Amino acid sequence: MDQVKIIEIKRSVYESNDREADRLRAELKEKGVFLLNLMSSPGSGKTTTLKKTIELIKDEFRIGVMEADIDSDVDAKAIAGTGVKAIQLHTGGMCHLDAGMTRQGLDELIDGEIELAILENVGNLVCPAEFDTGATKNAMILSVPEGHDKPLKYPLMFTICDLVLINKMDVCGYFDFDLEECRKNILMRNPNAKIIPISAKTGEGIDRFADWLREEIKKNR
Amino acid sequence: MDQVKIIEIKRSVYESNDREADRLRAELKEKGVFLLNLMSSPGSGKTTTLKKTIELIKDEFRIGVMEADIDSDVDAKAIAGTGVKAIQLHTGGMCHLDAGMTRQGLDELIDGEIELAILENVGNLVCPAEFDTGATKNAMILSVPEGHDKPLKYPLMFTICDLVLINKMDVCGYFDFDLEECRKNILMRNPNAKIIPISAKTGEGIDRFADWLREEIKKNR
Repeated sequence: MDQVKIIEIKRSVYESNDREADRLRAELKEKGVFLLNLMSSPGSGKTTTLKKTIELIKDEFRIGVMEADIDSDVDAKAIAGTGVKAIQLHTGGMCHLDAGMTRQGLDELIDGEIELAILENVGNLVCPAEFDTGATKNAMILSVPEGHDKPLKYPLMFTICDLVLINKMDVCGYFDFDLEECRKNILMRNPNAKIIPISAKTGEGIDRFADWLREEIKKNR
Repeated sequence: MDQVKIIEIKRSVYESNDREADRLRAELKEKGVFLLNLMSSPGSGKTTTLKKTIELIKDEFRIGVMEADIDSDVDAKAIAGTGVKAIQLHTGGMCHLDAGMTRQGLDELIDGEIELAILENVGNLVCPAEFDTGATKNAMILSVPEGHDKPLKYPLMFTICDLVLINKMDVCGYFDFDLEECRKNILMRNPNAKIIPISAKTGEGIDRFADWLREEIKKNR
């Protein structure tokens, strides 16, 4: 697991990202690939959450993970440690991935065997929300130390996500974090958002996230 | 303190942001204004740190604060509670401020009396690092729950900051956070960075941040 493949992704050439995203989504559905776009602030626990979740479901689905970062390959190495296919995407300083960039990663990731592809987007609550990656579903992690007011300040991210995981629930007692207030703020932005409190560290709630994935993958078939 | 002024800032029209930033920096120096650009991820504790610091130095300097957010005015209200001048800048969905946008805020903030102007930038470790705001100094907050590996993933932010505050040291025991590893990672990106561990909650280290500000303001006169 010392080496993971690093892809230097290039700026997209498509005129309309929305059109390219719809095209990619349709192609993935055709191929039977469910693509989850996972977003959050830096350090909210995307990689740790994925590791815990993959351990639960890796015997049920063929999984591939794309780790997007401006630099480093620490996350792809961490995911590769679970035994699933993991590649690192370097964005060349860019703050988000669009559909064309996601496609570049998928071309390396999918060898005809992946059923669940996961894109761990660049840690950023602003820009990734503005670019449809072509994902089947969008999910995000908000962690307890960030505070329950974040949906007030980063409206679009919460509006476009089908699922919001509230991570680091194990340290809730050490922060001024109000879960009910947080729920209210999220649902104000997106009344249809599914909200699951979790702790990637203790494993709390990871089974519910796994259930959500199972159900959504089934619906997509 | 129920109402704070909200400025809807517009996209800048300057051809070269770097040139406009240098011009703004020179003008501010001429006027005797020290401008601090404070950056971080969402929820790292920028506003709480500023509140605690302002309490220590508000009798020494005339202070004005610009709170940049995509939406809401909760931060400007919190700062206004300390008694200093605070305005809210709405970025219209934009993920950063450049020099022209900062100037729009300063035009509202400075009434000929401000000696220390603080820009609390949009919570984002990527884009704000790419745009020189014209600030006298750049500072950032990395908080313990985000992890000590962040300088590996967000190189530019750590490279351009004169000061890195490591916040939420009070919860260090609950996270896998290695302060020495963090220092090493920061100094790899910027050997000249000043690093101060703090806790905005308990007040630990805030005196050292205040000392840094006093010294830098003196040097700028």
